[in-house]
Amino acid sequence: MRNIKLTLSYDGTDFNGWQTQPGYRTVQETLEQAVAALTQEKRIRLNASGRTDAGVHAVGQVANFYSTTSYPPEVLVRAINARLPMDVVVRTAEDVAEAFDANHDALGKLYRYVIHDGSVPDVFLRRYSCHSRHRLDVDAMRQAAQCLAGRHDFRCFETEWPNRLSSVRTITHLGLSRMGDWIWLDVEADGFLYNMVRAIAGTLMNVGRGFWAPAQVAEILEAGDRKQAGPTAPASGLFLMRVTYERSPNATS
Amino acid sequence: MRNIKLTLSYDGTDFNGWQTQPGYRTVQETLEQAVAALTQEKRIRLNASGRTDAGVHAVGQVANFYSTTSYPPEVLVRAINARLPMDVVVRTAEDVAEAFDANHDALGKLYRYVIHDGSVPDVFLRRYSCHSRHRLDVDAMRQAAQCLAGRHDFRCFETEWPNRLSSVRTITHLGLSRMGDWIWLDVEADGFLYNMVRAIAGTLMNVGRGFWAPAQVAEILEAGDRKQAGPTAPASGLFLMRVTYERSPNATS
Repeated sequence: MRNIKLTLSYDGTDFNGWQTQPGYRTVQETLEQAVAALTQEKRIRLNASGRTDAGVHAVGQVANFYSTTSYPPEVLVRAINARLPMDVVVRTAEDVAEAFDANHDALGKLYRYVIHDGSVPDVFLRRYSCHSRHRLDVDAMRQAAQCLAGRHDFRCFETEWPNRLSSVRTITHLGLSRMGDWIWLDVEADGFLYNMVRAIAGTLMNVGRGFWAPAQVAEILEAGDRKQAGPTAPASGLFLMRVTYERSPNATS
Repeated sequence: MRNIKLTLSYDGTDFNGWQTQPGYRTVQETLEQAVAALTQEKRIRLNASGRTDAGVHAVGQVANFYSTTSYPPEVLVRAINARLPMDVVVRTAEDVAEAFDANHDALGKLYRYVIHDGSVPDVFLRRYSCHSRHRLDVDAMRQAAQCLAGRHDFRCFETEWPNRLSSVRTITHLGLSRMGDWIWLDVEADGFLYNMVRAIAGTLMNVGRGFWAPAQVAEILEAGDRKQAGPTAPASGLFLMRVTYERSPNATS
């Protein structure tokens, strides 16, 4: 039995998220059916690094599956893609150790939230961004975001709390950039709570439009109350960029 | 009565082209209804620089309409956009002379055809490009394209011929560029025949994949037979970039 690791991109707009749900179009089911049709196996079970919600995109989602297929990896990429609709694509395939688990072995993930604040919406990238009708002050957002880096209890940015597990996570990188009318927020962490990046984005957008002072974000984090934070920003702006499985040899921690 | 000129962008994917057709979703009807709903006029008639086909995009389509509305142009932009679906947007509005006619006064248009020839399709830009499974030789395509610049009878690139009008046009600029896995073909002319840019793109792609020698394009142009040219490339790769109405003060012709 081979254990095959796939890197996947998908346009989340027309999917009801990653996870299979009867009656809905999901990335997982779409991919499992394409792979099973190719390998002629009864059931393929794809194990992703984590679910993505309805409307959320992926540039570099990772999933693994077990199969008896004899197709080499590069043939798998082409042949699976030939069976997929145009909004999901396999970027790479590789054989990995039998024990590799795309979910449990993930050490970190990078999410990117994309905001457009031009006065006229961009018709081609609207599916892939959140449009802000207010011009945003990225310096103020950056100042506000400083308190989020590092290890904290992020329950204030968690949609469903209390849960049974810890809401402590470590943000290893948080960056905000602007180019023209485009702003992107990068958040890399060892794990994410439900809707965490979208809640951070919604909170920082409240700062960027001058609705809140930058210092308020530290108070929100301290208070640990979801109701005090900003709204959950739309799914259309969120991208799972990459999943990290091995520590970089240059990593300091 | 005011004459108002609009600059428009649209994602052509889900439209059945510009021109109103009963039973189909078209850009013209979508816009006319949004404007009429705003101005409370019984019927608004939008006159575009020209039709675009089903699936063809526009970055800078131009259209004018007559209206008694008193909204200033900047309010018109915002208020029309608030009534439009997410795949069409008004970029600018301005009052123009009563005689201005977006169709008849157009001196030239620039179309761009976008091709992606990476081995794995790009899931986010598939709606906005044509994917070539063959790596394309842009130098050969550029060499082949040289014969097309200038004034010629382009009937070999016209889908419906014979027609009752001339098929002589002047291509004032033709450029091919590559950046990574992306190639774009720019064609600027005083007018275009039906499917002309897509037929040029399909022909040059045959050269780019080594199926035809570059010199064959001059022979095709000379023969004036649509059947000898390449296929009409998919609409998804085509963008109407801009329409020119006044001669640039630096223009040499």
